[in-house]
Amino acid sequence: MIPPETLLSYIKENDKFYILPHVFPDGDALGSALALESALCSIGKKAIVFSRDTVPDMFDFLPEARRIAPLSDMTCPEQAVLILVDCNAPNRAEIERIKFKYTIVIDHHETESSFGDIRWILPKSPATGLMIYFLIKALGVEITGAMALNIYTALAVDTGIFRYSNTTAESLFVAADLVSKGVRPSFVADRLHNNWTEARFLLLKHMLNSIEIQKDTAICFITNDMLKKTGAKPEDAENFVNFPIMINTIKVAALFKETGKDFWKASLRSRGDVNVAKIAEKLGGGGHKNAAGFRISGDIETSKKALLESLDGVGESSGG
Amino acid sequence: MIPPETLLSYIKENDKFYILPHVFPDGDALGSALALESALCSIGKKAIVFSRDTVPDMFDFLPEARRIAPLSDMTCPEQAVLILVDCNAPNRAEIERIKFKYTIVIDHHETESSFGDIRWILPKSPATGLMIYFLIKALGVEITGAMALNIYTALAVDTGIFRYSNTTAESLFVAADLVSKGVRPSFVADRLHNNWTEARFLLLKHMLNSIEIQKDTAICFITNDMLKKTGAKPEDAENFVNFPIMINTIKVAALFKETGKDFWKASLRSRGDVNVAKIAEKLGGGGHKNAAGFRISGDIETSKKALLESLDGVGESSGG
Repeated sequence: MIPPETLLSYIKENDKFYILPHVFPDGDALGSALALESALCSIGKKAIVFSRDTVPDMFDFLPEARRIAPLSDMTCPEQAVLILVDCNAPNRAEIERIKFKYTIVIDHHETESSFGDIRWILPKSPATGLMIYFLIKALGVEITGAMALNIYTALAVDTGIFRYSNTTAESLFVAADLVSKGVRPSFVADRLHNNWTEARFLLLKHMLNSIEIQKDTAICFITNDMLKKTGAKPEDAENFVNFPIMINTIKVAALFKETGKDFWKASLRSRGDVNVAKIAEKLGGGGHKNAAGFRISGDIETSKKALLESLDGVGESSGG
Repeated sequence: MIPPETLLSYIKENDKFYILPHVFPDGDALGSALALESALCSIGKKAIVFSRDTVPDMFDFLPEARRIAPLSDMTCPEQAVLILVDCNAPNRAEIERIKFKYTIVIDHHETESSFGDIRWILPKSPATGLMIYFLIKALGVEITGAMALNIYTALAVDTGIFRYSNTTAESLFVAADLVSKGVRPSFVADRLHNNWTEARFLLLKHMLNSIEIQKDTAICFITNDMLKKTGAKPEDAENFVNFPIMINTIKVAALFKETGKDFWKASLRSRGDVNVAKIAEKLGGGGHKNAAGFRISGDIETSKKALLESLDGVGESSGG
């Protein structure tokens, strides 16, 4: 992974950089922005990370996270070079109406726009953090312990701590180098995974109690009443559909989340060859082969039934 | 990590090796034994893995796992060199009464005995698989895709896929090298973690329903009745105590498993500075600072109460 020469020389020749992660920033956006900020500051640049949103509690351990400035504090953008990280369209950082001196985009998502005077976009990179690692190295900056922790976290978040299919040999080599610079993998894992609120945990319990297993399909639901009872927020249920798919006899897992009286947002997961994108499309939704979703109205029993009917024959056709 | 010269030269000068993992073999024992077997065969040695137990279903994906022979099939051990892997005392492989030509021990556990003519024991190594990797390299053997998958799995199992505190930079470098030889990290992660039986999943549901949270302590239990209802086996509850410790306000998590009428085996986990080994010792058990256990008799309420009394003041003394 080699950063473009134009990017390197532009950074070297300029002095003032405003680094922006996307709105609702995750670990990759924050870790990437913070590591880059530290690296630029270390070679005498003025660099500031601005964010529309505050740092989520679970990421408050990231070095220098407290130095992130609110977007509303930004002054004189026309004199600064924008570096947009972990997204590639200005609306993803809510900066559509801001005029910068020059714009740089560093991202690993599919292109959403042609924004950016210099664009370094690698959809095959498992994380923006990995690109930032190679950028910092190419700038000749020694990676400090603080930068290492920010980059490691970025990489860990976007690869599910080296469990997702985007985990490459290169990302593990980089992780090893970052650990040799002082990152403790168990510390990061604890912050990312052993960091549930009690409300979220109780919500999981309620969701598991709703589970209904029919042959190779598992269906769960989360109602607004459950949220109320546990004090959990709707976003606490993120990734909960990954629990029933752990069962080795299950080919399709579905989680219905109540969005209003008799309105549901369903997430689907599947194993192997079972294509839930096709199921979701039948029901007006969409997605990828093993992860898709749709919206449906009706009571929970009717909604479940609609899903089961759409699934008919799908499990069997996967060849067992 | 450099294997001893005596080990290398002994292997080179001999021809027939019986490789033995410990009883109830886990991923590290099996992956290590299988990778070593392939490596020795590739340099013209006769090498066979023998095991008292069959390979657990979850590890049937390990290359060459089907070639593992039952211990009862072993012939002429007095003509073969024993290589004991992932344990260091003969009783751990149930071979106390067997006489071998020569004995080699390769392990990363604390020493239990002085068994072995050549002993390579590194308690600081995160996995025996890591030692096997360096042994195979030192023997001048090219690591194949099959060996890589066996070693990666060994390493993944014993580091919790790079989440435990034993995860070193070296282990990540080796993981990267193994991935470059064809291992797909998501495949291994799926086999290790998305491979629950329905019974185990239902047991988790029951355990979560038993949860009682008192300030910074979470207590769960699993009764024989729950095992009966769900069809789960006692070993299915392994690591279940790691669920309540995910809650970020919990300092101590305890899981009581019923071993007989009014008899319980309790597992304790703690966060940070809270020392559950001391609590377990008070109750006649023992363990490490963040993971310990004890046995207790009495009904569940009395047993819980005994634990809570032993905990008194522990949470507070940790400094919040």
